[in-house]
Amino acid sequence: MDYIYTNLLGSFVLDNSLKVKESVLFESPEDYLQKEKIEQKLNKKYPHLQKILPEKLPLVLSLFKDQKYASEFHQRNIFLTKQDIKASVSDDLLIMQTIASINELDKVSNLLSKRVREWYELYFPELSHQIKDHAKFVDILVHKSKKELIKELNFSEENLMGANLDLQHVEEIKLLAKEVLEIYSLRKKHEFYLEKVMKKYCPNLLELAGATIGAKLMEMGRGLKHLALLPASTIQLLGAEKALFRHIRTGAKSPKYGIIINHPLVQNSKEKGRAARVLADKISLCARLDFFKGEFKAKEYKKELEEKFKS
Amino acid sequence: MDYIYTNLLGSFVLDNSLKVKESVLFESPEDYLQKEKIEQKLNKKYPHLQKILPEKLPLVLSLFKDQKYASEFHQRNIFLTKQDIKASVSDDLLIMQTIASINELDKVSNLLSKRVREWYELYFPELSHQIKDHAKFVDILVHKSKKELIKELNFSEENLMGANLDLQHVEEIKLLAKEVLEIYSLRKKHEFYLEKVMKKYCPNLLELAGATIGAKLMEMGRGLKHLALLPASTIQLLGAEKALFRHIRTGAKSPKYGIIINHPLVQNSKEKGRAARVLADKISLCARLDFFKGEFKAKEYKKELEEKFKS
Repeated sequence: MDYIYTNLLGSFVLDNSLKVKESVLFESPEDYLQKEKIEQKLNKKYPHLQKILPEKLPLVLSLFKDQKYASEFHQRNIFLTKQDIKASVSDDLLIMQTIASINELDKVSNLLSKRVREWYELYFPELSHQIKDHAKFVDILVHKSKKELIKELNFSEENLMGANLDLQHVEEIKLLAKEVLEIYSLRKKHEFYLEKVMKKYCPNLLELAGATIGAKLMEMGRGLKHLALLPASTIQLLGAEKALFRHIRTGAKSPKYGIIINHPLVQNSKEKGRAARVLADKISLCARLDFFKGEFKAKEYKKELEEKFKS
Repeated sequence: MDYIYTNLLGSFVLDNSLKVKESVLFESPEDYLQKEKIEQKLNKKYPHLQKILPEKLPLVLSLFKDQKYASEFHQRNIFLTKQDIKASVSDDLLIMQTIASINELDKVSNLLSKRVREWYELYFPELSHQIKDHAKFVDILVHKSKKELIKELNFSEENLMGANLDLQHVEEIKLLAKEVLEIYSLRKKHEFYLEKVMKKYCPNLLELAGATIGAKLMEMGRGLKHLALLPASTIQLLGAEKALFRHIRTGAKSPKYGIIINHPLVQNSKEKGRAARVLADKISLCARLDFFKGEFKAKEYKKELEEKFKS
C-alpha cells in the first residue's frame, strides 16, 4: 500500500514503511497553489495511492524536521501567508475604515465645538445662545467679527455680557474654530470618497441606504458578506443592541429600529416601525444582490418604498 | 428716629412711619457704585440716621413695588449684573480654557492617530510596527511615499504584506493624517499662547512648573486664587484623586504625586516622592507670589531644586 502526501515543498509518494518512493518538489511557493495537478499525475502513475492516516502524520512530518527541509518550509509558509494577507484586503475593509473614521470625526468635531462655544462665551456669550447648530456656529465665528455680528443680529452693545478681550485672545479661539471647520470639511470628503468606493462595490446598498447608513450597516454587520447573510429582522435592529439586550433582560419595550431610523424613508414616515421593517427587507435584498454580483435593482426598490410611505 | 436706605435707584431718608422724607435718585446704574459718598452726605444732614432693621425691610421694599420704580429697578439690576459678569472674565479663565482645549486636542490626536495607523496598515502594515511614536508616524506618512519608505527602511518588497491599493485610496488616508498633523500644530500654538498669557499673569508658576503643568494645576485647583490658598500637600496630589480615594476607601498605597510627576525635576529624580513634595512646596509659594503680585523668585527656586536633585 502506497501513500501520497503533499506540503509546501512538494508531493511525495511514500511506501508502506513511510519511506519516500518518489518526490516532485515545487520550484516556488506559487506551485503549491496548483498542487492538485501534480497529485493527479502521481495518482495516474500509482493507481492505488491513499491519503496518510491521521495517526501516522506525526511520523511523516518528522521527515521534514531535518535541516534539509526545515528552513525552506518555514520561508515558503511565511511567503504564502503574506500573500493571503495581501489578497484579503477588500473594498469591505476600506469602506469600514472610512466609516469608522467618519464616526470618530463626528465625535471629535462635537467635542471641540463645545470647547469653542465655552471659550467664546467669555467674549460673546449671546451668540452661543442664538445659534444652536455647531457647524453653523463655528463657521460664523471664523468668518465674522463680534462687531459685524452685533450689527447683523441687532444686539444692543451695552446689554452684552462678554468681556472685552484683546485681539490675541480672540484669535486663539478662532484657531480652534478653524480646526473644527477643517474637520467638518474632511468628513465631507470622506463621505464623497465612500460613495465612490461603494458605487463600485455595493451599488444597490448605496442607492437604497445611502453612503453613511449603508457603510455603518456594513461595519456593524462585519462586512458585506456577513451582512448579506443576516436575516432582515437583524438588519432592522443593527445599532439597537443596547435596547435589545435591555428588552431581553428586563422585559422593557423591544426596539423597532436600529440605525436605519436615520433613513429619510423611516424619518418621514408616520409608522416608523413598519417603515423600518420594510426598508430592512429591501436593504437585505440589496446586500445580497451586491455580494452575489446580481443586477442593479435598488432604484426600483426605492421607488416602491417611496410610494408605499408617501402618506 | 430717621432711617437711611439705599438701593439701585437712589438713597432714601425715611421717617419713623417709613415715609420718604428725602430721596437722592441715581442718574445711572454706575452711581450706585459710589453710594457711600451720597450716604455720607445724607448722614451729615441728618445726624442720627439708622439703618433699616431687618424686620422692617419688607415694608420698605413694598414701596418699590409700584410701577413707578419696578421696571427701572429691574433694568438697573440686570445692567449691573452684566457688568459684573463682564468684569469677572480674568486671565484665569482664559488659561483654563486653553489648557482644557490642549487636553482635548491630545485626546483627539491620539484617537485619530490610531485610526490612521489601522487604516494605513491595510496598505503598509510594516511601517506601523517600525514607528511607535504617533506624531512621527503621521508626519512620515504625509511626507513620504511607500516606495521611498521601503528604500529608506530597507524592506524587501516581496516580503511585504500590505495590499496594493490604488492611489485614490491611499490619498484618503493621507487626508486624515494631514488633519492630525494640523491638530498637533494647533496644540503647539496653544502652548505658545499659554506661555504668553501666563508670563504676564503668573510668571512664577510658569517659570517653575512650565506652561502645561502650571496651567493644569490652575485648572484642577479651579483658578490661581484657589490654587494659592491650597496647602502644598494638596498641590502635590492634584491629578491623583482617583488613587487618593482608592487609598482612603480600600487602604491601598497612598499616592505620592499627581500630575507634577510629569515635571522633569521629578521625572529625573531617583527619589520621586521626595522630589514631588519639595517641588509642590515651591509651586505653592509661586502661586502665592503670583496671586498676591509678589516678586519674581521662581528662577531662584528652580536653581535650588535643580541643585538638590542633581544626583
